[in-house]
Parts: sequence; structure tokens; C-alpha cells
Amino acid sequence: MRNKFDRQLEKLHTELIEMGALCEKVIGETYKALMSEDITAAQTIMKEDNAIDLKERDIESLCLKLLLQQQPVAGDLRKISAALKMITDMERIGDQAADIAEIVQTTGSLKAPAQTVRIGEMAKATRKMVTDSIDAYVKQDLEIAREVINYDDVVDRLFDEIRDDLAHGIGKGVANPEQTMDLLMIAKYFERIGDHATNIAEWVEFSITGQHRGE
Amino acid sequence: MRNKFDRQLEKLHTELIEMGALCEKVIGETYKALMSEDITAAQTIMKEDNAIDLKERDIESLCLKLLLQQQPVAGDLRKISAALKMITDMERIGDQAADIAEIVQTTGSLKAPAQTVRIGEMAKATRKMVTDSIDAYVKQDLEIAREVINYDDVVDRLFDEIRDDLAHGIGKGVANPEQTMDLLMIAKYFERIGDHATNIAEWVEFSITGQHRGE
Repeated sequence: MRNKFDRQLEKLHTELIEMGALCEKVIGETYKALMSEDITAAQTIMKEDNAIDLKERDIESLCLKLLLQQQPVAGDLRKISAALKMITDMERIGDQAADIAEIVQTTGSLKAPAQTVRIGEMAKATRKMVTDSIDAYVKQDLEIAREVINYDDVVDRLFDEIRDDLAHGIGKGVANPEQTMDLLMIAKYFERIGDHATNIAEWVEFSITGQHRGE
Repeated sequence: MRNKFDRQLEKLHTELIEMGALCEKVIGETYKALMSEDITAAQTIMKEDNAIDLKERDIESLCLKLLLQQQPVAGDLRKISAALKMITDMERIGDQAADIAEIVQTTGSLKAPAQTVRIGEMAKATRKMVTDSIDAYVKQDLEIAREVINYDDVVDRLFDEIRDDLAHGIGKGVANPEQTMDLLMIAKYFERIGDHATNIAEWVEFSITGQHRGE
């Protein structure tokens, strides 16, 4: 027979999976908004960012309730502390997606310059990182968490490539000024999404081992 | 006679003021590193960012201890929850400063282009915002918190000006590619520091009123 604490912990897992799914969705929508002519896509992203913010509050309340009422120790305390940190990073992923959406709303979608292929790859890679990091938390699987952390190199490399390409365009005097600025910022936002996914995976690692890399 | 809870709450205030002072310091150092030829300044910033990270852990432990042992309610619970949020934003300020330091380490200081005046103003404005937001928390002063929130417009305007100037340079074909990229990123990091200071002030507002603007 399961006790109340276990049921609440299971609720926490479900909520985290839901919040992770919202993050994956918003990353996907961001890429779609960048590629399409559809300005309403950007508004959808703003709404999804709000949904992510609300989910963060819900999970935070649940974590604080668990901490106050159940006063967990050792592994369970670590899992709840890790969850509190993970939702902050997930919330930031929503913010970065909203930042990209804001660019799309101001300047319209990217009319398929060469960099959009790489930005598509960044979106795909970061989605995978978010999915896998939540998966690692629920399964408490150290291997998956570490794969996510290593995978961030792929995202960083894509950012560097985009940045170098844009600098090359400026140097040759062929760059569109607004598009260059926008692309650099968009690539940076995706790179940050990768950083947040890495943070999530590092908190998963902490929840399992009790050691955080930052320490 | 003051009880243990009050003493712990006072310790929390002292620690927050110290963490705020570290943030102000690191913002100041960042500007100095940008202006000087001294590459070691960037290393100092990295160290300060680590000190901020450690401080965050300390304050977080203290908050969790307060929550678990004292089970505060109403105003005190809000103050501690707000502190937990504020330190996350302060920690991010350290990260942004470290991001700027990384650019300085890679490409050296900015050799006084026109934008450095504005970047200096951004540094000054964001320092003030951090100082005032912590001051608002300790004094529980709603007026000061709201002034910080409004002051973010100054930082945003400076960012827009820098961005427009850089775009203009690209358009005229006179831009230095690397410096353009670097300046845009540096300005963006300062703009983000302003956002985090605003977040801190919003949490102060929440700790006083029980209402958060995001809700």
C-alpha cells in the first residue's frame, strides 16, 4: 500500500513530465514560427510561455508542500530540491522561446537564408535534450542525464557556425543588417535553451548522486 | 528578546545584502574589464561569479532550513519564498557577467568605439537597479521596488540604441564583423542583467503585497 508521500511524489513526476512536454512543444512551435509566414504562431508561443509559467507555480507549490508537510530526508529531499531547480530552467526555456517569438512578431519569419537549416538543427537538438533530461529524472537514469550534458556540444557548435557565417557576411559587405542581428540573437536564444536543458540534466545527476557539477 | 526565527531571518537579510554587493561588484568589474587592456580582470570576474554561486547555495540552504524548521506562514513565508527566487536572479547576473568576461578573454577589451559610452551607462544603470532592489527588500519598501522596475526602461532604451547603431554600421559596410557581434552580445547581456534586477524587484513587491506581476 502506497502512502501519501509516494502519491505526492508521483504527482510531482507527472507534473514535471507535463511541464517538459510544454517546453518541447514551445521549442517546436518556435521553429515553425520562424519558418512560416504565420504571425499568429508567435502569439501561440506567448500563450504557451504563460502556460509554462503557471505550471512552474503549480509545481513549486507542490514541492514546498512536500517539503513542509513531509519533511523528507536524503534521496527524497534531493529529488524535491532538484525539481525546484529544474522548473526554473524549464521556465527560462519558455522565456527564450518567447524572446524568439518577439523577433518573429517584429520582423516576420526568416525567408529561408542559409542559416535556417542550422537553426532547425538547433531546435531539434534542444528539443531532444529537454525530452531526455525529463526522462532521465523520472527514470533516475544517470546515463541518459550524462548524454544530455554531452549533447550540448552539438548545440554550441551550431551556434559557432552560425556566428562565423554571419561575421563573414558582414566582412564581405553583403549582410542584411536587421537579419544579421535577428539571426545572431535567435541562434543565441537556442544556444541558451541548450544550456538550460544541460542544467536540468545536471540537477537530475544531483538528484541521483548528491553531487552537483557546479560544486 | 528576539527569538531564533528572527535571528535567522536577520541572517538571511545580511546574506542577501552580501550577495547583492557581490553582484554590484561583478557588474562594475565587467565594465572595467571591457575598458582596460587587463586580461586578468576577466579572470577576476570568473572567480567572483563562483563566489556568487557559492553564496546562492548558502542562502538556499538557509531558506530551506527556515522553511523546514520554522514552518513560517503568511508574510514570513512570502519573504523566504521571495528570497529563494531573488537569489536565482542574482546568480544569473553573475552568469551574464561571466559571459561578458568570456568575450573579453577571447577578443580583448573594446578599444573605445562609440558604443562603449552607452555600455558604460548600461553598467551603471544595472548596478543601481541591483543595489536598490536589495535595499527595497531589506527595508520592505514598495516605492523603491517600483522605481527599479520602471528604471529598466532606461536599460532597454540603451540596448535599442546600441543595436540600431550596429545595424547602421553593417548597412554602410563599415562594420568590424567580430566587434559588431561582440558588442551586440555584450549589450544583450547587460540588458538581461537589467531584466534580472527587475525580477528581483518584482519578488520584493511580492514579498510585501503577496501579489506577483506575472500572475
